[in-house]
This record gives sequence, C-alpha cells and structure tokens, in this order.
Amino acid sequence: MSGEGEFGYIARRLAPLAKDAPGALGLLDDAAILSVPDGRELVITADTMVEGRHFLSGTDPALVARKALRVNLSDLAAMGTDAFGYLSCVTWPLNGPEGLKEGFADGLALDQREFAVSLLGGDITASDGPWTISITALGHVPRGAAVLRSGAKPGDTLMITGTIGDAGLGLKCALGELDLPSDDHEHVLQRLHLPEPRLALAAALREFASACADISDGLMADAGHVARASGLGFELDLAAMPLSPAASRWLAGQGDEAAARVFLATAGDDYELAVAVRPGTEEAFAAACAAAGVPAAIVGGFVEGGEARTIFQNEVLDIAAPGFTHF
Amino acid sequence: MSGEGEFGYIARRLAPLAKDAPGALGLLDDAAILSVPDGRELVITADTMVEGRHFLSGTDPALVARKALRVNLSDLAAMGTDAFGYLSCVTWPLNGPEGLKEGFADGLALDQREFAVSLLGGDITASDGPWTISITALGHVPRGAAVLRSGAKPGDTLMITGTIGDAGLGLKCALGELDLPSDDHEHVLQRLHLPEPRLALAAALREFASACADISDGLMADAGHVARASGLGFELDLAAMPLSPAASRWLAGQGDEAAARVFLATAGDDYELAVAVRPGTEEAFAAACAAAGVPAAIVGGFVEGGEARTIFQNEVLDIAAPGFTHF
Repeated sequence: MSGEGEFGYIARRLAPLAKDAPGALGLLDDAAILSVPDGRELVITADTMVEGRHFLSGTDPALVARKALRVNLSDLAAMGTDAFGYLSCVTWPLNGPEGLKEGFADGLALDQREFAVSLLGGDITASDGPWTISITALGHVPRGAAVLRSGAKPGDTLMITGTIGDAGLGLKCALGELDLPSDDHEHVLQRLHLPEPRLALAAALREFASACADISDGLMADAGHVARASGLGFELDLAAMPLSPAASRWLAGQGDEAAARVFLATAGDDYELAVAVRPGTEEAFAAACAAAGVPAAIVGGFVEGGEARTIFQNEVLDIAAPGFTHF
Repeated sequence: MSGEGEFGYIARRLAPLAKDAPGALGLLDDAAILSVPDGRELVITADTMVEGRHFLSGTDPALVARKALRVNLSDLAAMGTDAFGYLSCVTWPLNGPEGLKEGFADGLALDQREFAVSLLGGDITASDGPWTISITALGHVPRGAAVLRSGAKPGDTLMITGTIGDAGLGLKCALGELDLPSDDHEHVLQRLHLPEPRLALAAALREFASACADISDGLMADAGHVARASGLGFELDLAAMPLSPAASRWLAGQGDEAAARVFLATAGDDYELAVAVRPGTEEAFAAACAAAGVPAAIVGGFVEGGEARTIFQNEVLDIAAPGFTHF
C-alpha cells in the first residue's frame, strides 16, 4: 500500500465492490442513493468489531472482514429481512501488518457474492489503536412484516436454528485453552470466524415467527432479550439444545454436564436465531428451514410472567451471568 | 458509569434519543425499520472520527459528539437531502476520562434537536485504543433530485457557502501554534468544533445546483472532486474566497498573502458547500441561501478539460498538495 493512499485504495479495491449498486455512485460522492421497492420498508443495523475485543490480533484479515459483515447480516436475518447492501467504516492500525488492507477487501468481495449484497459507501481512516470496523447493513421487508423481538406470545415455542456453543469452543481453541481432535478443532474455529447469517430463512420467519433475535450474547441471554421485549418469561431445556458433533464430543468428556451445557448456552457468538414460533407451526417452520438447508430444534417456550427458567434433567439451574456484555 | 454497563447506558441515555422514531424500536431490537416517503429516495452516508486524528484528546465530549453527527449531516446536505436520522457506533476508550459517556449523549441530544434528526440504532463497545465514533446518517430526496458531484457542466459557476479557512485557523489555535485576539480565537475554535451542516439549503441546491460537494478536505480539493467527477476542470480565484472577519484580520498580518490564502483554501474541515450553479441562476441561488441565513459567494467556474487553475491577482498559482488525505 505504500504510496497509494486513501483514494487509490478505494478506487482499486473498494469501488469494484460497489459496481452492481448504481446508487453507490462508484463511491465517488458524498453519500449513496437508494430506492426501497414499493410496498417495502428499509431495515438497517450497525455493529462494530474491534481487534483484541471481538477478534484476536493476527486473525486472517479476510476472515475479520467476513465476520464483520456477517454479524450485521445476522441482525438483518433475525428480523426476516432481505439484505441488499452495506456501508463499511474502517480504521486501520497505523503500522498494521502487511496484507491487512488487501485481505480486508478480499474478504468483503467473497462474502458480498455469497450473500448477494453490495458495498454502498463508508469511510477509511487510521489510528494508533486497534483495527476497528463498523459496518452498517441494509435490507428490506414487506411493509409491516418485519419480525421483532417484542412479538412473542405466551405459548409460543422457542426454537433454535443450527447448533449452539461451537463458537465458544472455537474461542477457547484460538486462545490455546482447549485442544480438540483436528477435525473438531477446524469446525469450531470455522464457526468462530465465519458465522452463518440465516438470511435464507427470511421468508420462513415472516411466515411462522412471532418474534426473533440473533444469538450474539449467548442463547440464554438472547432468548431472554426476546422474552423481556415481549413482556414474558421463558423456559429453556438445555438437554434439547442442538449441538454439533464436535460440541457433543467435547461435552462427552466433561465431568459436570449441566455446567458444560451452561457454558455452551452462554458463550455467545453463535449467530444462530432464537425464534418464537407460533404454536402448531413448529413442524412447518422446521420444514421451511430444512428446505433452506438449516436445521431448527425446539428448546423451550415462552410463558406469562417474567421468569427465565433454564432446566436440565428436570432440575432448574441457578445461572449467575446469562451472557456476554460488551463493556 | 461504574457498574451500569452497556444496557443501562443505552436505556438511560440513548433510548430517549430514539423516542421520536417509532422504527428505532426503543433501541431494543436487532435493527431499525424505516419507511421512505412515497416518491422519495433514501440518501445514506457514514463517516468515522478518531481521537487524536479528527479531534484532539481532551476535547469536550459533547463537542465531539456534535461534530461527529454534523460532518455526516454535511454529506447529506451536499446532496440536497432532507435528513431524518442516524445510527451511532461508538468505541469508548477503556479508562477514558470521567464524563465522556454523559457528554457524548448530551451532545447528541443537543444537535438532534437542532437538526431534527433521531437516533435509530448503532452499537457500543470499548477498546484500549483512541475514542472512535462512526456515524451513519440518513435522509431522503425527491426521486431523481439528489445533487451529485458529477453533474457540473462547462460554464457552471463555482459558488461557496459561508466562509473558508476558519477551521484551519481554529486547529492552529487548538494546537497552540497560533495566537489570535480573544473574539477571533473563540470564533475559529467554534468553527473547528461545530461546523454548520447546510441542511437548510437542501431545496435551493435541488433547484439551482448541477453539482455539489461539502468541503471537508479543503476548498481546492473538494472543488477538484466535483470537477473530476464531472469530467471538467475549474478555475478558482482566491481573491474572491469568502472569509470571516477573524480570518480577514489574520490574513492582514501575513507577509505572503497568496500563500496565506492557499493555506485557508487547503486547510479543510470547513463543511461549507462547493456548488456548481447553473449559469444565470447565481443571484437566485444566493438569494435562496440568504433567505436561509447563509451567505453564498462566486469564487470561480467549471470549464472544459481537466485543468485546475487557482489564480490570485491575475497569477496562476502552482499548488503542490491541494488538500488533506486521511492516511
């Protein structure tokens, strides 16, 4: 990058990411111009990732870019959104490692093809602090059809997409605190670095879900966010929590299974969906998810009152800290 | 803030900033939901400010918040946009000074009243690096009416709102590199810390401008951005550059007036508008600006070819670096 500067990098690496979005104006203007299709509403979210806090120093910069985009797309997915674009504000570390900027653009290029979104704008700067990336992601939904956290009703079933806890194990592996067999190690690291935003489930959510949140802080915390926003309580059966083969093998080696399952349910970074499914539609929802290649499992339900009951083998667990908070 | 945590701060200080925007969902959901009025297009921009790079450490945090919002609103203003909201991604410095978070929320509260915008979402995190704020600002324009950088035609007049160079002098004062009389000192610091996004000129721009950019990198650089995006050159007469009384008094004390005017025209951070006004409508544009309380001055024009000619007292100046680049 020596000598190229801000405008050169934008022209060479970022403008190509905006070429399919005419409203991005080639990233040459003060702002982007977007049309929202008739009968649709815009959905917008923004999240930051900071080196050393949300990802480890030395992580492949392409993976960092992809995760920064994916965690935002996951927020859109939770609302049943059809995603179409994003803005990227990146603060490079001064004297950062070789290849950071190229890897970042490579990662964005890969994932915007994968998820059919375009770069629409943003900003580039640098500081003597950690690498920091703020992404704003955009999508749309049919008017009035967005799935909110606050829509759960008593009697709704709590369902979970994919598997829970892999990213938590992946972080332990990345930190050198855990050894897993080679394939399992690869799997949980992949799940840590490349969460799968469940955008493919947008239509199914809009049809069957009364509420939803993506699981970033941990299954228990985010199920709790849905319950609280809906003025309800919830029950969660940790025995029903869907696990990957890797997580199941890890679990089999743990002495205290209840504590191990609580770890998986509170580790966060899953970017699966915690869904309040209307009673009687659980099978139809699971079938719609399966048709999109995503498993969905029943793990509990929403109830009157404000209580969060986490049970395992018919015992109610006493949980001190249900999830990760960011500061 | 001790003990309050992320969710407490959001509920106590940020959620009130979102209360007039139903689509912000009380900042309790994964994303915000927005409707764009019929016949209008969305305009969206995002910019980052980093402590030590875009503002000095120790700056009043309310001023930092207001400038972070204002520089984004300025980008919207340059396109003739009616602004309505913003998302804020903030990374606090760990062990930052007392009052940072309160001051930040105070500043946003003040300016969102001033500019009739609402907080719509965002993110909060922390790092051991400098305080970093990324704002995404949103507005709308009548479909097809956005004023682009690329619309200038040969023969268009280059007009400038407000005055140029005050923020550059303000930065010198803030750094202790310049002493000005007390009132002038106050004026240029105010201009550094609180740029005036020219949102009030949105309708006038849409009526009379064929192109526009806001002046963040410096008058010469940003006039050049308009010219280049339009495939044109431009002429700029530094003698015609509008100056505040404070800048005029500073200028009167400089030995080399041409060099001093080049400093003012390249210092940046003005957040005024460089406008390509259709020939014959200059007076009407200036009158519309004056009706909104903003002066507008003719400083040059756009011409065929790609040349940037900066003149002063009938001499063409040779300018090495027309503006600030960010890394």
